[in-house]
Amino acid sequence: MPNIAYVNGEFIPTEYASISINDRGLQFGDAIYEVWAVINGKLLDEEGHFTRLNRSMNELAINNIFNKASLKIIFRELIARNRVKNGIIYLQISRGTAPRDHAFANDLVPNIIITARPKNFSQLEAKAQKGFHIKTTKDNRWGRVDIKTTNLLPNVLAKQNALDNNFDDVWFVDDNNFITEGSAQNAWIVKDKTIITRPLSNEILAGITRQSVLKLIQSLNLKIVERAFSIDELYNCDEAFVTSATSFVTPIIKVNGNNINDGKVGEVVKMLRKEYLSV
Amino acid sequence: MPNIAYVNGEFIPTEYASISINDRGLQFGDAIYEVWAVINGKLLDEEGHFTRLNRSMNELAINNIFNKASLKIIFRELIARNRVKNGIIYLQISRGTAPRDHAFANDLVPNIIITARPKNFSQLEAKAQKGFHIKTTKDNRWGRVDIKTTNLLPNVLAKQNALDNNFDDVWFVDDNNFITEGSAQNAWIVKDKTIITRPLSNEILAGITRQSVLKLIQSLNLKIVERAFSIDELYNCDEAFVTSATSFVTPIIKVNGNNINDGKVGEVVKMLRKEYLSV
Repeated sequence: MPNIAYVNGEFIPTEYASISINDRGLQFGDAIYEVWAVINGKLLDEEGHFTRLNRSMNELAINNIFNKASLKIIFRELIARNRVKNGIIYLQISRGTAPRDHAFANDLVPNIIITARPKNFSQLEAKAQKGFHIKTTKDNRWGRVDIKTTNLLPNVLAKQNALDNNFDDVWFVDDNNFITEGSAQNAWIVKDKTIITRPLSNEILAGITRQSVLKLIQSLNLKIVERAFSIDELYNCDEAFVTSATSFVTPIIKVNGNNINDGKVGEVVKMLRKEYLSV
Repeated sequence: MPNIAYVNGEFIPTEYASISINDRGLQFGDAIYEVWAVINGKLLDEEGHFTRLNRSMNELAINNIFNKASLKIIFRELIARNRVKNGIIYLQISRGTAPRDHAFANDLVPNIIITARPKNFSQLEAKAQKGFHIKTTKDNRWGRVDIKTTNLLPNVLAKQNALDNNFDDVWFVDDNNFITEGSAQNAWIVKDKTIITRPLSNEILAGITRQSVLKLIQSLNLKIVERAFSIDELYNCDEAFVTSATSFVTPIIKVNGNNINDGKVGEVVKMLRKEYLSV
């Protein structure tokens, strides 16, 4: 299987693809990223992810020297070269390369890395049919998780801890016992036919799939409330699910060992997943 | 001037030194680092930094395949090759290289980068004679800043914001209006001849220079209390200063536009800096 990456203007086998040891992404997490799902060769929510990419760069004042049309051509090239029918595009942009110093000059030239690789979504589909068992953990991330940066160590540690303890994933809980979001997914519950998800703030990522599912919910005339929900509400909800670019809409059937909806995948999430993937 | 780095077993010109695009440090900030000051060719607090390096790797369960004696040989080699009389050694270790996934295998082989470069400490000395003007800002970092990881974006943004607004640096303030620490330094005040600094916890880094200065204070029979101090106490203190591996002991003479000790460098900090650098 070919494995070709794009790094700063060149297509190069991933195995040899590298970045300077003075990249600020490497030394400070001074970098942002985006992930697109590729389904049947097409990018899901393509424009939404570009909008967020620009916002992330803007929030960090990274020089936005990139052109959407050019990036799209690179994406197509990588999809073709790597023979990706179903998979993901990963894009990472750092502030640039400079001798190590917290402070930065405002004229640095960003480093860009793009990869495309196949992903077996039908395997995920089987898992999604079954539903996930999640644990909850204290949200100890920094105050600007609305920016999609590579400062992901808390997410990494929480996710691995969940897996090590036989959970499928983890949801973060704030100081007031309200759910913020998952390790890399937005969090939702359904109670008495009302769908509930936390409103946008600095405490959650503005998921592109979240946004698309919100639109879908409205188009289906389902009831939706954007408000924070507590861990107690989660235990007592009718259905729970996550959304993300690569998990789409995935049901949660168990939290910290407690069944939701008797451990069965609910009707609302089942429908939302089907509708989202049919768009 | 030669500029040679050490990367995964090889000495290589820094300009060509690079790391895989699938390095977990690059993609997740899944990496730790250490910095040693080199004074007259000798490493300051050499053992203390090694102890903390091991602790950081242990906290993140990064495979510690490194041998202190070998690392010391590499340090000497880099100091010689780069002709560093006074400067810094920078060492970064990531969990390793793997296709991007939050979850990680426990047998990954870490990536190691070491650099040595000259630093003009006498220039810093001139600045230290004058004292720093700092601003304070809300501490929005993650919950485990006691681990010396590369998740440094909040530090970077706070520091740059301080510089952009004509301050020299920044101190972080917790939700209860107590100082945690500086952007890359521990924070101290002196009031009525008592030296005060925040005790170790997950909320500050266990500075090696902090530890050495604590010992120095005890050896000089000065009064020391390890407790958190508030921003009001900072405004009303007699002296304030920071400690770090590369700034040693540096006086603060102004906070958010308000003079400390009428904007003059105090006697305690002056003595501590002199004594610390004479050891």
